Formats: sequence, structure tokens, C-alpha cells
Amino acid sequence: MTKIIIDAMGGDFAPKQQVLGAVDALNKDKDLYLILVGDETQIKAELSACQYDKNRVEIVHTTETITMEEIPTKAVKTKKDSSLVVAFKLLKEGKADGLVSSGSTGAVLTAGVLILGRIKGVSRPALCPLIPNHRGTTTLICDCGANLECKTINMVHFALMASAYANAAYGIENPRVGLLNNGTEDHKGLLLQQETNAALKKIDCINYCGNVEGRDLMYGDIDVMVSDGFTGNIATKAVEGCGKAVSTIMKREYKRNLWTKICALFSGGIIKNIRKGLDYEAVGGATFLGLTKAVVKGHGNSKARGFAACIAQAANSVRGNLVDKIKTMIDSVDMDAITAALSAEKTE
Amino acid sequence: MTKIIIDAMGGDFAPKQQVLGAVDALNKDKDLYLILVGDETQIKAELSACQYDKNRVEIVHTTETITMEEIPTKAVKTKKDSSLVVAFKLLKEGKADGLVSSGSTGAVLTAGVLILGRIKGVSRPALCPLIPNHRGTTTLICDCGANLECKTINMVHFALMASAYANAAYGIENPRVGLLNNGTEDHKGLLLQQETNAALKKIDCINYCGNVEGRDLMYGDIDVMVSDGFTGNIATKAVEGCGKAVSTIMKREYKRNLWTKICALFSGGIIKNIRKGLDYEAVGGATFLGLTKAVVKGHGNSKARGFAACIAQAANSVRGNLVDKIKTMIDSVDMDAITAALSAEKTE
Repeated sequence: MTKIIIDAMGGDFAPKQQVLGAVDALNKDKDLYLILVGDETQIKAELSACQYDKNRVEIVHTTETITMEEIPTKAVKTKKDSSLVVAFKLLKEGKADGLVSSGSTGAVLTAGVLILGRIKGVSRPALCPLIPNHRGTTTLICDCGANLECKTINMVHFALMASAYANAAYGIENPRVGLLNNGTEDHKGLLLQQETNAALKKIDCINYCGNVEGRDLMYGDIDVMVSDGFTGNIATKAVEGCGKAVSTIMKREYKRNLWTKICALFSGGIIKNIRKGLDYEAVGGATFLGLTKAVVKGHGNSKARGFAACIAQAANSVRGNLVDKIKTMIDSVDMDAITAALSAEKTE
Repeated sequence: MTKIIIDAMGGDFAPKQQVLGAVDALNKDKDLYLILVGDETQIKAELSACQYDKNRVEIVHTTETITMEEIPTKAVKTKKDSSLVVAFKLLKEGKADGLVSSGSTGAVLTAGVLILGRIKGVSRPALCPLIPNHRGTTTLICDCGANLECKTINMVHFALMASAYANAAYGIENPRVGLLNNGTEDHKGLLLQQETNAALKKIDCINYCGNVEGRDLMYGDIDVMVSDGFTGNIATKAVEGCGKAVSTIMKREYKRNLWTKICALFSGGIIKNIRKGLDYEAVGGATFLGLTKAVVKGHGNSKARGFAACIAQAANSVRGNLVDKIKTMIDSVDMDAITAALSAEKTE
């Protein structure tokens, strides 16, 4: 049985959508056990209308909630009985193997590092969402905002962790890794990208394909894109905005007149499939890589379907031994040796 | 008569598409005069099949072409009889008011600065493309790759220049300016974004709306997005890739089976409009802001239609007094006073 802890109170539509998503996940996956953390009365009220296996759910009652507006570090330190803090404490105590929350990103990152803790050797945990691409699969991008300013060693760790994640959660053998840059040639980018590109070329345990560009996030042939958190955040939100713009443009065009409305009626299935192909919520949330357990951060505006996808994602990471795979990757790379080799090449 | 110089040899499909684009522009705009620079025999061969007003075209023969593979600074300095170098020299001599090239970006930037020169007071010229947005208009983003690493003063100049450009070429009164950042709050971003946000708030001659996010490039309510060149390049290419992915997904869905193919047949006009709404080529190229004349860099793979849009763009900039408007903007801002005010606030 794979045990996942649910922060039932985090998110714009919590606890309703979180509880409905949990039920959906339970019904789809007979080997899943969920611990719902939050206001017991509210959770029970939502559950009462649902059909599910009651033997695979338990509720842990909490009295507080961390809101989007609060300062993360302060909230995590003071709100001891918040659903998020209690959820992370239960995870730390070994009550489950993974956690899902749609709460404030800052609070999840803070609680993840302060309460749960990071894997030994990982310089910086990082957020890794999935972006739908033109092939009908997804591209992972790491980091997308947990670490705005990065050093080469952080970037190398992002590559190792996201590579391990693509394999553990999505079964991709030898995932193709690209470095987000302003061009494909080796001399491209700022010092950080130039150094990271040189370092990644020296690492055998990943399938590094070199520099890639912004367009490769949705229209490339890579599985994993490595980036500093600032640039990754911009790129991720840029394609999200593009997807929304497409949706608006489609709606406008199909509603233009009677004829286009009739076309829309007949093309319903096609339009639905196109939207599905661009739906970043359906693919799940961002996994917080580098912690000692699998932690998934869902979108703040997650509905049941998206939240259920996040739970499945966490379960897949647990079953694919995400944490062990990251450990193996990190341990296998001797960063000091790589740094020495690179500086020796420079002096030559 | 607005005179524009055309680098007829720059671009993947030059000179054919450049000449066809020039003819298209001439036929649409009776007040346009074009100087086509390049191989006379090839240009004449393309022109011979076209209908246009011969009194509004002249050809300047050159023997060399700068390719995409060449090192820009070296090529501009050594290929004295290349279409690009000759075009910029004619522009400098006052033979025309603007220039359009689809040649290598690096070569256009180099020739622009070395041969034509920048407006006095402009710290760094910058590339400013147009991105189609959900409103059916475009968002300008400046810089998108001419300056990878930037200081606050560069960013402030990007805001001033792009604001002047939105007004001069597109007639937007009081264009709304946003700073590309990883969140909207004032504390967001790296030191560069924090300082730029504080500085832009102190400038009266632009309509600064604060920090914006990646999604606002295509799904926001701003006219101008300010960014360092590295991040701007990533964001621009990210949405370009998203647009391409959408196109691929649409094709796949409409070709799925006989029924979807029939739907495609009937929805032809709608599909065309959706594509048009996302078509970054139709809106023109990137204007190189901060030079003493209007210079537009077209996409390397520009076809006639896109190249004609670039010519119209250059003509609009000339007629809207782009260069004078940038001069006025730059002169009106006392950067030293702003820097002093900001550091005084810090010490308080």
C-alpha cells in the first residue's frame, strides 16, 4: 500500500476540490492509502457525498490554515496546528511516503526544507513541473522558481535530480537533458550557463544533449530542461500564458457568428482534444525534488481532476524509488573533480 | 515619400522573398520608396515577374553576402561590399530614413552600432519584437537578446525606448509598461529587477504598471514588457515554441480520422483565424531601438508577407518620428538624480 498525506486545506478551492480529488485518486488506484490533514468536520462533510473505500482513508484533524498572503517562514514557524505543518510532521515521522499540497508555494518549500529536510549532498532542492509538449508527452523543467539565483553546482544537481525523477515517476529510460539557454552553441549564455554546459558534458550518468532554447520547452526533443529558478519561472509562465491566450482566441473565433458556432458544435471533440493537449493542470503539479520524501505542489487553483493527478504523481514517484534514485545520482558525481578538470582546461 | 533601404540578400530565402515582400509593400503603400541593396542580376530577375511602380524603386549593386555562420564583427569589418554593410552605409549617409534586413541578428546589431551609431544618451540599443496576445493586439518586449547582461540604467532605457516606439509606430497613447519578473510584488526578482522596479516607479514620462509575469507576455494587459536580454530571449522563444506546438496539435487532431477531416474542411476559416491570431511573423520583425534611424530585423526565415510587414513597420516608425521620440524620452530622465534618490531611500 502506497501511503500519501494530503494537505486538505491548501488551495483556492480547499477543502472541497482536494477531498474530491483524493476520492478520485483512491477510486482509480486500489493500492493507495490517503491521510487527509485538515478540518475534520469540513472534510467529513465533503466525503459524505462520495463513494470510496473507507478502509484506505484516515483523517487527521487540524485547526489552522496557512493562507497565500502570509510570510512563509513566519507562518510555518508559528502555525503549529496548520494542515501543512502537521502534514509535513507526519511525513517526517514516517506515517507516509509522500505528500501533496496546493497551498502557498513558499510555505511548502519552507516546510519541506525545515520540517522534512533535504537529501544529504543535495545543494538546493528545486521545483520541477511538467509542461505538455507538441509530441503529446511532457517536458520537465527544473528549477522553476525555488532558487532564483544559482551556482553551477545547483544547476548540475537540478539536472541529476530531474533526470532521476523522469525515470522514477515516468519510466523514461535515459531521459534527454537540455540546458535552457539563449542559443544552442557552446559559447551562448551568461557565465552560469557556460559553466553549467561545460560541467554537464563531463557527467556520464545523465544523457546530456547540450544547450536548448525557450522554444524547446513545448516544441523540442528533450525530456528534461535545466534552468536557474528565475529563468525557469519566466519560461514556465510564458507558455502557460500562451496556452491561455490560445484558449481565448479559439473561444472568440468559434463564437464569431452562427456558422462558426455550428462548426464548434460539430468540432467539439477536436476542440476538447486540442485543449487537453495544452492542459498543464491535467499532467499534475510540480514535484519538489531533493527532499527525503516525494512532495508534490499542486496549482493553487487546482480542481479535483488536477489534484487527483498530483496524488497519482506522488504515488508514482514513491513506487519508482525517486528518493533512492536521486541519492544514487548525487553520490555518483564528484563535483570537486569536475570543477578541478574545468579550471585546468581554462588555464591550458 | 518615406525612403527605406532593403538588404535584399539577408535571410534564408533571399533575395526572392525579400524582393517579393518589397513589391508587396510598395503596392500597399503609395508613399513608399525602396532602395534594394544586393546582387543586381538576381534582384532584377525577381522583379521582372512583378507589377509595381518602377519610379519608386532603385537598386544598389553589391557583390558579397554575410551568412548566418560568420562571426558578426569580423564579417561586418571585412565584407565591405556585402549587402548589409552597404545598406547601413547608405543609411548613415542619409540616403533613406529606415532599413530592413532579415540577415544574421549579430551582423545587424554590429553594423547598426558600428556603422550607423546610437542615439546620444542611450546606454545600450536593444531588440524589440512584437508578440501577438489574447486581445488580438501585440505586446512589445524589450530587450529580447541584444544585451544578455544588463544594469538598471539599461533596463530603464529599454522602458523609455519601447514606450516611445509603441507610441510612434503603433499610435498607442500612454502605453502600459510592465517589468518581467517572477511575481508581481515589489520584493520579487533578483537585485536587477528590484532596482529596476524602484527606478521605473520614479519616472513620470512612462505609464509604469509594476512587475508582471511570464504569462503576461501573451495573456496580460500591458503594451510593453521590459526585460534583460537573456530572460527576454527565453520568454520570446518559449511562446514561439508554444505557438508551434499548438499548430502541431491542431494539425494532428484535425487529421485524426475522416470525421475530423470533414470538420477541418468546414472549419477552415476558423482554423486560419486562430493561426493568424498566433502568427508572430505577420506582425513584423524586431525593431532595433536606440540607433539614429529606424532599423527592423526580420525573421531569418521570413517569407514575402512577413518581410512586407517589416517594411511597413519601418515606414510607420519613420512617420511616427521614432528617433526624435526616443531622444525626448532619454533626455527627460535624469538617471543620476534617480540613482541618488534610490540610494538615499536605502540608507534611510
